[in-house]
Amino acid sequence: MQQILVNGKATDSLSALDRGLQYGDGLFETLRVSGGTPRHWERHMARLTRGCRRLGMPSPPVEQLAAEARQVCEGGQGGVLKIIVTRGSAGRGYRPPEAPTPSRIVARLPAPGYPASFGQDGVAVRVCDTRLGMNPALAGLKHLNRLEQVLARAEWQAPDIAEGLMCDTQGRVVEGTMSNVFAVRDGHLLTPELSQCGVAGITREVVLELAARLAIPARECSLEIEDLMQSQEMFLTNSLIGIWPVRRLVDCSFALGPVTRRLASALEHAHA
Amino acid sequence: MQQILVNGKATDSLSALDRGLQYGDGLFETLRVSGGTPRHWERHMARLTRGCRRLGMPSPPVEQLAAEARQVCEGGQGGVLKIIVTRGSAGRGYRPPEAPTPSRIVARLPAPGYPASFGQDGVAVRVCDTRLGMNPALAGLKHLNRLEQVLARAEWQAPDIAEGLMCDTQGRVVEGTMSNVFAVRDGHLLTPELSQCGVAGITREVVLELAARLAIPARECSLEIEDLMQSQEMFLTNSLIGIWPVRRLVDCSFALGPVTRRLASALEHAHA
Repeated sequence: MQQILVNGKATDSLSALDRGLQYGDGLFETLRVSGGTPRHWERHMARLTRGCRRLGMPSPPVEQLAAEARQVCEGGQGGVLKIIVTRGSAGRGYRPPEAPTPSRIVARLPAPGYPASFGQDGVAVRVCDTRLGMNPALAGLKHLNRLEQVLARAEWQAPDIAEGLMCDTQGRVVEGTMSNVFAVRDGHLLTPELSQCGVAGITREVVLELAARLAIPARECSLEIEDLMQSQEMFLTNSLIGIWPVRRLVDCSFALGPVTRRLASALEHAHA
Repeated sequence: MQQILVNGKATDSLSALDRGLQYGDGLFETLRVSGGTPRHWERHMARLTRGCRRLGMPSPPVEQLAAEARQVCEGGQGGVLKIIVTRGSAGRGYRPPEAPTPSRIVARLPAPGYPASFGQDGVAVRVCDTRLGMNPALAGLKHLNRLEQVLARAEWQAPDIAEGLMCDTQGRVVEGTMSNVFAVRDGHLLTPELSQCGVAGITREVVLELAARLAIPARECSLEIEDLMQSQEMFLTNSLIGIWPVRRLVDCSFALGPVTRRLASALEHAHA
């Protein structure tokens, strides 16, 4: 199961001169397809549009992306919808063209196939050596410059380690290689603030809203690994996994606690 | 004049699932073609091989790249040879495949067409607002994560400004958006050290070697914009431009001085 549209055409080939390849000059979104429909579509499109604005490039019309998403999702139930938008092709050199024509890659890909136990019982997590460089100009964006995540994910092979946490170059926890991270301390929900680096995940956003609705006090703040180890609950989020409780961080164990359970249940039933 | 080989085939199309596009998971080299031959070929190949090793990916055989470079350079005299090597195609997810097959893009592109005066009389340079994030894991590499350079180069349109200097997030000068930077102070050649960020340019390497041969004392060090403003000479380097003297940095003027002249002349005659 793999269907790809590049600029609306049923092909998987893109120009090697595209700025997405040349410079990572673009953004992406990864959505879970459920019952043939991508979840949290509006939120993902809103983030993509905001991201394009921050990079100073036009975003493709959302209706066009929606039509292409429907086309690749047709006849299938599940899987992953991945959308890449780049600043398009142009001559050599970093300088963006004055009127770029963005490229669109809209693909339905197989679901990642994580064990069901990861969501039900929780996962073991390590701490990566690879750090995240800090740059407010790129912080929060789901852009195509992902070498730090690639190097971090290459650090371990053990299949029983589901995720690796990444710190910034000053030692503060930012996120997992592919997920956002939350901790519960004394009834408070905490998650790293992302003003210097990291991806502002859609599921992170939804979880913070659900916490407000459930009257769970929540805040974005500066956290170190020590802080996580002293928390009572910990969990990871992304659009594909939803919530994974963390049951082990290095040599520190966590119970699957009540706040994680409430949020996981609320997320499962949240409006798509 | 544009010739492109993708994995040895005369096409400009690459899989949209290539990790080069998905994550910027790869490296590139830009060489000046002169008399039909790419200059400093061995140095560029040595840097590419070192870079692949640092990213933990196999590098394509140099003989293969050499044959492809000859093929695209055939029948032409000048221009630019751009080589991109990525970790190739694979499934979704940051985790690198165990045995990746790198992708190769070997392209001859038109020369950038800068005014001859830039090299002869010097250029005006600005200071960019966009900073470079610091990460020793990526420092020095000519990798495909170049959004910071793209954002910096988008800051100005004025054609009389040839380059913009970039500082790291702690305010130290690192490089230009597409060049390395040198200053001359009291007869000493100074250039930013690149342990935290920046690209370790081939022409930068050659210039440092030429300085040693010409008995010009040179060192890599920490420099701020103020230090550059207090220097007697300043110049920029890259493989396409060679040396551009800087005649103006913001509101500070420089003479085209003797050290810049000696190094430019030595570079012009350096063994390719």
